[in-house]
Amino acid sequence: MKKLNIRELAKSLGLSASTVSKALKDSYEISNATKQKVLEAAERLDYTPNPYASSLRKKRSKTIAVIMPEVADNFFSLAINGIQSIAKTKGYHVLIYLSHDKFEHEKMIVEDCRSGRVDGVLISISGETTSAEHCLKLRSEKIPVVFFDRELENLDIPKVITNDYDCGNTATRHLLERGCKNPVFLSLSSSLSICAKRAKGFAAALCETGINPERKIIACDGNEDAVIAEIKKLLLSSHRPDGFVASVERLAFQVYIASEEIGIKIPDDIKIVAFSTVETAPILNPSLTTITQPAFQMGRAAAELLFRNIEKPYLDLSRERIELPSKLIIRNSSGGNRVIN
Amino acid sequence: MKKLNIRELAKSLGLSASTVSKALKDSYEISNATKQKVLEAAERLDYTPNPYASSLRKKRSKTIAVIMPEVADNFFSLAINGIQSIAKTKGYHVLIYLSHDKFEHEKMIVEDCRSGRVDGVLISISGETTSAEHCLKLRSEKIPVVFFDRELENLDIPKVITNDYDCGNTATRHLLERGCKNPVFLSLSSSLSICAKRAKGFAAALCETGINPERKIIACDGNEDAVIAEIKKLLLSSHRPDGFVASVERLAFQVYIASEEIGIKIPDDIKIVAFSTVETAPILNPSLTTITQPAFQMGRAAAELLFRNIEKPYLDLSRERIELPSKLIIRNSSGGNRVIN
Repeated sequence: MKKLNIRELAKSLGLSASTVSKALKDSYEISNATKQKVLEAAERLDYTPNPYASSLRKKRSKTIAVIMPEVADNFFSLAINGIQSIAKTKGYHVLIYLSHDKFEHEKMIVEDCRSGRVDGVLISISGETTSAEHCLKLRSEKIPVVFFDRELENLDIPKVITNDYDCGNTATRHLLERGCKNPVFLSLSSSLSICAKRAKGFAAALCETGINPERKIIACDGNEDAVIAEIKKLLLSSHRPDGFVASVERLAFQVYIASEEIGIKIPDDIKIVAFSTVETAPILNPSLTTITQPAFQMGRAAAELLFRNIEKPYLDLSRERIELPSKLIIRNSSGGNRVIN
Repeated sequence: MKKLNIRELAKSLGLSASTVSKALKDSYEISNATKQKVLEAAERLDYTPNPYASSLRKKRSKTIAVIMPEVADNFFSLAINGIQSIAKTKGYHVLIYLSHDKFEHEKMIVEDCRSGRVDGVLISISGETTSAEHCLKLRSEKIPVVFFDRELENLDIPKVITNDYDCGNTATRHLLERGCKNPVFLSLSSSLSICAKRAKGFAAALCETGINPERKIIACDGNEDAVIAEIKKLLLSSHRPDGFVASVERLAFQVYIASEEIGIKIPDDIKIVAFSTVETAPILNPSLTTITQPAFQMGRAAAELLFRNIEKPYLDLSRERIELPSKLIIRNSSGGNRVIN
């Protein structure tokens, strides 16, 4: 196809070349409606502007946003490193916004991202988020969005995830193989797809062994004190669990602390596996068996997907779905000490 | 003093009220030079605009930036929580930028902050930063800056710090009291004021006991592999240290990992104290004695200082200096298990 020049683009719109040029340069002299019309036609007709105009038209901010619930969990700090490793090669800044697991806060942040501040958004949703209207609004304004790790299912938004169901299943089968008869799953939020999938994998493993999973999925969605109280109640109950699958590392730490306080021995009395990338796992007392997510690689893959869409806004990546596998690393908290890939 | 109105302000500048109003509203019709003149006069004459104009003039972005080296260290994730607890009450967004401990990266980020994107900047400098020209540029453009934790000394920039010298000294005296004869200090960067002060406190404690501190301050500023190799070399040397003061938590973790590999027992063979707020300190093997910084409170105090300056740009806070004390929490890695305030 012959390359379209600015005069031909202007002609197709019934506008002057100067108006089109100003629209592409985001001049205040041109109305938003006209700018929109020009940009849409440029995209539809595959008009490739010269690099200078291009940088003004498509890469105004040279910045992407990363919206995540927190940075205290090691998964997110590794994912940021992965994201930045790609952004750096593109000459982009990375802005990190924290939702603190609040939907209202997340919505305000997304609103802030609509102001032209950023060229694209990577998001790992809050534990309270059940609707994606705010993300779809970004999309409708041509700001590409990619979910990473924590996502909303059944939505046409590109995503990078891990095999949460399989790993919930693997972690639980591991505890059963090591002799647990009464394991429980500590869930951060039942509305979070990652927790729900991990819990489903847990329940399936129990069913396969003839154990009823009812009342074995424990919601730990309160504040820290409430969660510690809940864990202590479990550890002191007459039907004490003998195995724990922790959906996030923080919950495993709380089991460690409560066990020490009560005088329960890990792994003799109870066994633990946690979804975690924490660097101190090997030096905890006892060392912590983990389902280790490829956090850095997930950050990289999500950023790569986002930049594909920033650079080629006409590509429809909405059904793109990349799944990178996590792995079980067996340490002493579950009674073993070898690595399985 | 009588409150100045916009007409009087305009008169004092020899401009029309409409021009002054447009300048305060950042209209494109007014030149930057005129805007600058109007804003300076408004500040000098203490002109208080109506809230609407004020929000346009002074609070255009409703966003502050936090520039920090990393988020993997728990200090920074707690400090962010403290910063956000204040920003929330002000209705502000917090943007987090990571310098990854590179000066060049930090400079680019600061440059990005000059574009009107943010109303103020909190910065904890990189391990490579020795000049503050980039920060002073922000100041000269009336964007308030506050240092927190990692700062440059002898500069008129407000700061929130902790008692690093005293704590370096306390940590070292603690190791000497527990019987260490040959302690070393693991430094992240000799140019970082926090490391330099902690190391000075360490050296002073040795001198007080008649130990020569020469060659006892070990630079751990290479990549991870280089640092691990350096620590292993120390542990395998004929004159093996019997005590470690780790300037950051990561270095303590590396001593733990290397010790286990080599078969050296903590605290029997070597003792460790680390500057750290890591939540897993009590459940490490053995539990880690820490100098625990008031990270959340430091973040709060730094944000409060910044907002004072954002809200009252005419205040000169450049010599403001808030020091919040850290405390020694004795656990098993140094051979004890009680808390001293």
